[in-house]
Amino acid sequence: MPSLPDMNATNVEELALRAAEQQHHDPHVQNVDLKPAFFDWLCRMGDNALIAGHRLSEWCGKGPALEEDIALANTALDLIGHAQMWLGLAAEVEDESRDADKLAYLRDAMRFRNVQLLELPRGDIGETLMRQFLFDAWHHAMLSRLTDSSSPRVAEIAAKALKEVHYHLERSSDLVIRLGDGSEESHRRMDAALALYWPYTGELFESDGVDKAVIAEGIAPDPEDLRATWDETVGEVLREATLEVPEAKGHVHTGGRSGRHTEHLGFLLAEMQFLQRAYPGASW
Amino acid sequence: MPSLPDMNATNVEELALRAAEQQHHDPHVQNVDLKPAFFDWLCRMGDNALIAGHRLSEWCGKGPALEEDIALANTALDLIGHAQMWLGLAAEVEDESRDADKLAYLRDAMRFRNVQLLELPRGDIGETLMRQFLFDAWHHAMLSRLTDSSSPRVAEIAAKALKEVHYHLERSSDLVIRLGDGSEESHRRMDAALALYWPYTGELFESDGVDKAVIAEGIAPDPEDLRATWDETVGEVLREATLEVPEAKGHVHTGGRSGRHTEHLGFLLAEMQFLQRAYPGASW
Repeated sequence: MPSLPDMNATNVEELALRAAEQQHHDPHVQNVDLKPAFFDWLCRMGDNALIAGHRLSEWCGKGPALEEDIALANTALDLIGHAQMWLGLAAEVEDESRDADKLAYLRDAMRFRNVQLLELPRGDIGETLMRQFLFDAWHHAMLSRLTDSSSPRVAEIAAKALKEVHYHLERSSDLVIRLGDGSEESHRRMDAALALYWPYTGELFESDGVDKAVIAEGIAPDPEDLRATWDETVGEVLREATLEVPEAKGHVHTGGRSGRHTEHLGFLLAEMQFLQRAYPGASW
Repeated sequence: MPSLPDMNATNVEELALRAAEQQHHDPHVQNVDLKPAFFDWLCRMGDNALIAGHRLSEWCGKGPALEEDIALANTALDLIGHAQMWLGLAAEVEDESRDADKLAYLRDAMRFRNVQLLELPRGDIGETLMRQFLFDAWHHAMLSRLTDSSSPRVAEIAAKALKEVHYHLERSSDLVIRLGDGSEESHRRMDAALALYWPYTGELFESDGVDKAVIAEGIAPDPEDLRATWDETVGEVLREATLEVPEAKGHVHTGGRSGRHTEHLGFLLAEMQFLQRAYPGASW
């Protein structure tokens, strides 16, 4: 994504045009046959980042320690930045005069494509960190593969995001280890958090027609191919955290990627979208 | 309020007109000088009922026992019904093509006139019941006085609402007594709930220019005149509940009646107003 144009510039259109000229040419973006699947896939990437970012942002000013508060807010900002890039590209592919903001603020729950794992309430700080770790491990594996995407635009976003997600994963791994291998209480809580989120992790590796279409074009990897890396990262960190990999199935709760969500997403969106819903078109 | 017109009727306007003809004539409703104060005062009555009702409705399907779940939902419905009547009359007084729904769903927080007490999160069931009791005791005293209002429309709404609020007060008193004079745990929680809400009760008895204007017209009593009845009801119930009337001041948190609200109201409205904000004008 180009850097944001100067908000005070009078000729924003020209700036946008100039920025667009600097984009890599990407034949996939204008591929009409691919459009529905590519749009949906980009929304999945963007919505995962947006919803994960929003949940983290709920900690702003309420973190258990100053450093943690700032770190969570920074991670939230990173993810919301990724959402802006993915949804911006999604809007470009869709080509129906929407932009990242419209996609973020004016879609209702059934149009959101994030996995259910990320929309669950933030819980306590242990739950937040465990969920983040499980997602970071997937996110890192996914973005690493996407840097080789046949779509230069996708590869570019992935490369930008990966730098930050590398740090996210390092941080959440470290904290999962410290809390899992910490006090009796912190171990108990992390164990419970792992049990809570595990049944939602399977959705990260699902694929359907949308995935098949972008896989066939070499845009994205098969989600199933990320599993070995994820299993390895998760297994290693949990071992060091003295937590056991749950035996339960990871595929119990799925559907978010096709718009079937838990009740929690509606409440999250009601809050996140309030300003644009109450004051349509408001800008600053 | 007239009964709702048949939703399937083609000539709703005629039905509304016929219903309006059945209304008592009320000179206050067309009094232009009184309009701003009367409108605000009606919003205060309506918003108290609406926000209290919404908070209770949050228990729907989540009550600690079936009977309690149904009772809370019924009380919520009663209060939302009252809100519809008060805000309907407010809209009529305002005479600017708004109706009860528009007032409920399309005002932002600073335009709401409920006391802060009622917008606080619902807490646990003990907190919910204690807050409800403190409000019911005031609500009952207020409505009893309003049945003698010089405004026939106000008196009519008060008479309808009072029948239900009589039952609300009976019920919440009974539960405060059972929980206060219950187990050690329930006593401790009710005591904490009382301490939590007490500093918000003073706002119920405040008065300002808006009150003075409707008091002068004989529409409503001076809120301060409700205090003796409230003190008596609350004192008696708390005594039986083996809870002590707090010594702390009741006037610590105020401002809701003039639109100065806690952060909680914004979140409540984001949720409550989502449908009308996301789908403007949606009806069924």
